[in-house]
Amino acid sequence: MRSKSRGIELTQVIQWQDGATSRVQDELAAEEPLEMRAGRYSLGVTLRTPGNDEELVAGFLASEGIISRPEHLVAQRLPQNGVSERNLVRVTLDPRVRVKARGTARRFSAGSACGVCGKASIAQLRRRGLRPPEESTRFNPDILCELPEKLRAAQAVFGRTGGLHAAALFDAAGSLLVLREDIGRHNAVDKVIGWAFLNGRWPLSGHILLVSGRGGFEIVQKSIAAGIPLLASVSAPSSLAVQLAREFGMTLVGFLRGRRFVVYSHEERLAVAAAVAR
Amino acid sequence: MRSKSRGIELTQVIQWQDGATSRVQDELAAEEPLEMRAGRYSLGVTLRTPGNDEELVAGFLASEGIISRPEHLVAQRLPQNGVSERNLVRVTLDPRVRVKARGTARRFSAGSACGVCGKASIAQLRRRGLRPPEESTRFNPDILCELPEKLRAAQAVFGRTGGLHAAALFDAAGSLLVLREDIGRHNAVDKVIGWAFLNGRWPLSGHILLVSGRGGFEIVQKSIAAGIPLLASVSAPSSLAVQLAREFGMTLVGFLRGRRFVVYSHEERLAVAAAVAR
Repeated sequence: MRSKSRGIELTQVIQWQDGATSRVQDELAAEEPLEMRAGRYSLGVTLRTPGNDEELVAGFLASEGIISRPEHLVAQRLPQNGVSERNLVRVTLDPRVRVKARGTARRFSAGSACGVCGKASIAQLRRRGLRPPEESTRFNPDILCELPEKLRAAQAVFGRTGGLHAAALFDAAGSLLVLREDIGRHNAVDKVIGWAFLNGRWPLSGHILLVSGRGGFEIVQKSIAAGIPLLASVSAPSSLAVQLAREFGMTLVGFLRGRRFVVYSHEERLAVAAAVAR
Repeated sequence: MRSKSRGIELTQVIQWQDGATSRVQDELAAEEPLEMRAGRYSLGVTLRTPGNDEELVAGFLASEGIISRPEHLVAQRLPQNGVSERNLVRVTLDPRVRVKARGTARRFSAGSACGVCGKASIAQLRRRGLRPPEESTRFNPDILCELPEKLRAAQAVFGRTGGLHAAALFDAAGSLLVLREDIGRHNAVDKVIGWAFLNGRWPLSGHILLVSGRGGFEIVQKSIAAGIPLLASVSAPSSLAVQLAREFGMTLVGFLRGRRFVVYSHEERLAVAAAVAR
């Protein structure tokens, strides 16, 4: 296989159609492991689509609660092509960040679509100090309905491989700020969160995060950690995702399709609450 | 939220449609953490849809290479309702299974969609002793094309919540043997593999595994560990999934839709190889 761009790999495949076969060139979504280390400590391994690795690492550290302020992340040494450490990122953290003390909690690696490894309960997140977004922004349902189309229009890679998840950050006026794609849904979210973290938008109050797939537990947890008040997805959330959003004060919207959506938690942020008959 | 069945939870939500809002009852795919322990050792935590837990645990242990033969799994103590350990499964393994010696490699937890945590490279899988399926079964493309419809017809839960992944095991004649669903794709696969492991079909030579979503790295790795010669999905595989299937001798089929599919590796098991112009 050879690389076309960082996110795409080309390879020869066999296409079968109604009995006829042909060899064709196909584009695959690239997937490679990336390990994050701070000194002697491995912070995790993730299977990700190469590209925007600096954002991915910053977003992972912030959304998993390892760091909470931009100044905690002193430096990153990204992998270099052709060296043995090409899938290793070494991070330098502020000495006040106690990675060692987190040893037990950190005993996990993140797989291709694994976000909350080892912290798989709401109680654990409370102990970690996860708090509700403190803000009173109100969001307009009409603006919300326009976001999936804006996301699709911006997804260049998606149409080619069919194998990538997308996450996009919008402001309350519905302007697209950043779109990231990855083979792992939680990586796409980490890249978006990392972009904000590295670009002076932290925490993400007043913003909307839209994900292309399901709004699962790990995506909700990462969004809360980033201070995002409204998480929307085009698909269904899980029961644990809904519980988490309710307990941690985040507005969770699902099945955002056309002029329709479902609000699973904290409808007071959408201008729909007053109209709902109780 | 209250439970309707083990895989579904009912909850009140707000539906917004073109400016009109209403409170309705909605069905959510259930998601709960499950921890697996052998003596003092935690083998992992997974976020799964409750149900078929015994299969999930057996399948996880087998597909992750912790055990390789049915007699290695001596006993399972499943969670009881209403007790503090309701999300804990204690397994008793054959004394020859060295869980302790695997300590370092086992330092991971599996998240909602995380299969290969900590073993995120093909080299590591080689060291683990993963081997190609030893067999010469040939599969019929016409039979393959009928499988997605058989899977869809058998998916009762999927249509209700829109939030579940499915995995189904077929024999070479295209008969459906078992279908399992889960909020995590890798859990659905583990449940199917566990069913085979517990029911005297091990390894799974001569079988086809069909997954509803993407055939990613972790699914390919689990399928190889179970001896499955042909893995098919309706969507695109990743570059690492294709590499792994090629190196470990598994036939990987993607975009299985209608009368069309793409063969990414080891086409010699499908009766298409001879017809392909090189």
